[in-house]
Amino acid sequence: MAAKYSNQSRYTVAVDCIVFGYDGKNLKILLVKRALIPLKGRWSLMGGFVAKNESADQAASRILAALTGLTNVYQEQFYTFTDPGRDTQERTISIAYFSLIDIKKYKESISDAYQAEWFSIKDFPNLIFDHQAMVKMAKKRLQYKATSHAILFELLPDKFTLPLLQSLFEDVYETSFDKGNFSRKMLSTGLLLKQRDKDKTGSKKGAYFYKLDRKNYQQNLHKILKLVPNPNSIL
Amino acid sequence: MAAKYSNQSRYTVAVDCIVFGYDGKNLKILLVKRALIPLKGRWSLMGGFVAKNESADQAASRILAALTGLTNVYQEQFYTFTDPGRDTQERTISIAYFSLIDIKKYKESISDAYQAEWFSIKDFPNLIFDHQAMVKMAKKRLQYKATSHAILFELLPDKFTLPLLQSLFEDVYETSFDKGNFSRKMLSTGLLLKQRDKDKTGSKKGAYFYKLDRKNYQQNLHKILKLVPNPNSIL
Repeated sequence: MAAKYSNQSRYTVAVDCIVFGYDGKNLKILLVKRALIPLKGRWSLMGGFVAKNESADQAASRILAALTGLTNVYQEQFYTFTDPGRDTQERTISIAYFSLIDIKKYKESISDAYQAEWFSIKDFPNLIFDHQAMVKMAKKRLQYKATSHAILFELLPDKFTLPLLQSLFEDVYETSFDKGNFSRKMLSTGLLLKQRDKDKTGSKKGAYFYKLDRKNYQQNLHKILKLVPNPNSIL
Repeated sequence: MAAKYSNQSRYTVAVDCIVFGYDGKNLKILLVKRALIPLKGRWSLMGGFVAKNESADQAASRILAALTGLTNVYQEQFYTFTDPGRDTQERTISIAYFSLIDIKKYKESISDAYQAEWFSIKDFPNLIFDHQAMVKMAKKRLQYKATSHAILFELLPDKFTLPLLQSLFEDVYETSFDKGNFSRKMLSTGLLLKQRDKDKTGSKKGAYFYKLDRKNYQQNLHKILKLVPNPNSIL
């Protein structure tokens, strides 16, 4: 390698991961207790430094796998935080990612080393540095992306009922839907395949299971926009 | 400031700017001849290093102002490029921005120092490093964003005709529209205010001027989606 760029500043570069999960009732985020000085022991997003020979994507996957035991997780870079004073230890650029995981899979493979805990997106502790702003932006990006990609289905089991899907959409878009209206609009998207069996845990009558129609969903995804109460507040 | 993080690598951090402009006929990007070793003299995006006391947003504005003389330009961070080998001189993280400028304004204030030139987005020289991939992603982001934000109007004069608007949309979405169909759909979005005067440079009959209805455009912006031939290829 040639001589380096002269007279330029160099900074540590980190990734921070906003991990979303859904437990069938609430949209949640996974937080850890920070293991480093400064602010050791405070609640924080899971993060780490980008090492010499890896890209930020690779660093984010490595860090998420160390925490959750999971690989092949949906993960997306969404914004880079660069305020000169954001990290009080030294100037650190943070490339933020959000990921979506199935909470049940996670439970089977969790590492205890990080003191990780799930918190409702509606009620979680104060976070260090600019991590609060990262969560806020990640949620907005999730709302935005979910209008045109099947990413929310990553948070659900393979078979799900309309009430479960409605509860997830209500949490993500911070709204409540009329039940009949939600079902009608959701079915009209052509995204769902009705199954023969029912979930009878919620009521005697039960609720039919559905699966995402992976064959035709590319053409129909943008129809989810119809479900969003005010697309212009998020798009 | 406390002791630094120990044993961590540090990298130079740059911003690169994809500057879009529209000259009334073609969507263009602004390129410069690189002033630094390596690859000095080769075509490149306009970029520079993030200095000690500035954020990436501030660096991007500073660099764009130095090149174009323009401030208060629409500018948006869209992706951070981190491949360990992307810069052959030393490891450099690049935070990429796209901006939209009115080519006419630019012409009045251009700095000659950078040997900058506009190229059609359909035909421009090979670029250094991963700048080709940056342009590709910036264009996709522009397509995506323009379905729900009035950003394409940043590229147009205050008053414009429907043929001019159609030509811009055709360039951005790489398609051609039927004239009657485009006009009908565009007017049905409720985004445009018809003016009393006509542009008569194109034909004897002339074409009415329109302005963006800035009072009501927030509610109507997502209707632009109707104009996009295949929303799922870009959303």
